[in-house]
Amino acid sequence: MRTIEVCLTPDLIGQHDLKGKIVVVVDIFRATSCIVTGLSNEVKAIKPVGEIEEAKALGEQGYLMAGERGGIKVPDFDMGNSPFEYQKDDVKGKKVVISTTNGSQAIVKSEGAKEILIGAFLNLEAVAEYLLQAKESVVIHCAGWKGTPNLEDTLFAGALIDECAEEMETTGDSALVAHQLYIANHENLFGIAKKSSHAERLSGFGIEEDLEFCMKENEYQVLPKLVDGEIVS
Amino acid sequence: MRTIEVCLTPDLIGQHDLKGKIVVVVDIFRATSCIVTGLSNEVKAIKPVGEIEEAKALGEQGYLMAGERGGIKVPDFDMGNSPFEYQKDDVKGKKVVISTTNGSQAIVKSEGAKEILIGAFLNLEAVAEYLLQAKESVVIHCAGWKGTPNLEDTLFAGALIDECAEEMETTGDSALVAHQLYIANHENLFGIAKKSSHAERLSGFGIEEDLEFCMKENEYQVLPKLVDGEIVS
Repeated sequence: MRTIEVCLTPDLIGQHDLKGKIVVVVDIFRATSCIVTGLSNEVKAIKPVGEIEEAKALGEQGYLMAGERGGIKVPDFDMGNSPFEYQKDDVKGKKVVISTTNGSQAIVKSEGAKEILIGAFLNLEAVAEYLLQAKESVVIHCAGWKGTPNLEDTLFAGALIDECAEEMETTGDSALVAHQLYIANHENLFGIAKKSSHAERLSGFGIEEDLEFCMKENEYQVLPKLVDGEIVS
Repeated sequence: MRTIEVCLTPDLIGQHDLKGKIVVVVDIFRATSCIVTGLSNEVKAIKPVGEIEEAKALGEQGYLMAGERGGIKVPDFDMGNSPFEYQKDDVKGKKVVISTTNGSQAIVKSEGAKEILIGAFLNLEAVAEYLLQAKESVVIHCAGWKGTPNLEDTLFAGALIDECAEEMETTGDSALVAHQLYIANHENLFGIAKKSSHAERLSGFGIEEDLEFCMKENEYQVLPKLVDGEIVS
């Protein structure tokens, strides 16, 4: 039987064998929620980079520059890190370079996998459907926060495990813990997510609407994949 | 308000500031359960070491040698890693050197804390009572399994948070996740712990009774502390 496992933070990815597997990267607040929203709204491609300078270099080549540091848009960037910015008409057909700390690191550290997908509650069902028809085992790679596990990504991991439970066997206790977290809170995902450290940190920025949107399930059917360093659908 | 936080594996301890705090080390299956049982049964002191050779050197000085590798007692050692071995009369008044992979590492990596305590379900209430009357903030340091988080240590962390919830504020999402895991399963701790990877690995060794015993709450009132490299009560 295929297996499904969970890495709670990029700092622990070395303990997971990614070879031949599909990795689903998740950073609910807010990078992967933004990516899913953007690609559903005709953004052509999204390139994740770590450093602001890399993003600026690509900005000169015509990419829209997106990203935040400490919850605030990087000065001179076109966009911050809100999914609503990715719903606007002026992103359609464009390429976006996104510079985030947690999300980008998780994507970069997923190298070596057979395939790298981008997951969020917004496209949960699309990811699950793809995984269920595939043949590979799965690693859910949570971006966490500065190397520590976070609640909302762990909750997503539990939700995805729940969708795949009939076809895959969980491996490792992080998967069990994530699944238990989801089972205990599946009727009120936003309620528990609001208690997360990340939501509390961000609450000062008046972005409750962002957080609520990021917790919506199955708003989009898009399935973003990393191809040659860029995320496309 | 004092804070209580959770480190899910020794590989993540660098992300926690231990200075001035009380660290509670937990390795439910089975090192800290053994330590609690031994010190409740008049073992004089227990010295945690990483390597088998270190244990053997102390064995020559009169320590009883305890430890296992891969679930099996180390050859020539006096004891393996079962709490029942620590209930026997011939350990009374003796010093024991214990060589374990996960538990010892967690103890060693807790250096820098103001105080290092040993926790298990067996002495949950004793640990909680001590923490509630103390003034320091708390870090629960889960030994995990070979660097990855495990279910049973996370469950204990949740139980201890639950005991301390009125006096301390959780910090970080690992604490929230652990607490949720405990709340969802507090009526059947052994039921969920049996599903853990560690329980499944050990089930081939016919030690279900060990595991069931390790999940008993408040069998003992002992409060083991690390003092000058040895654990005493």
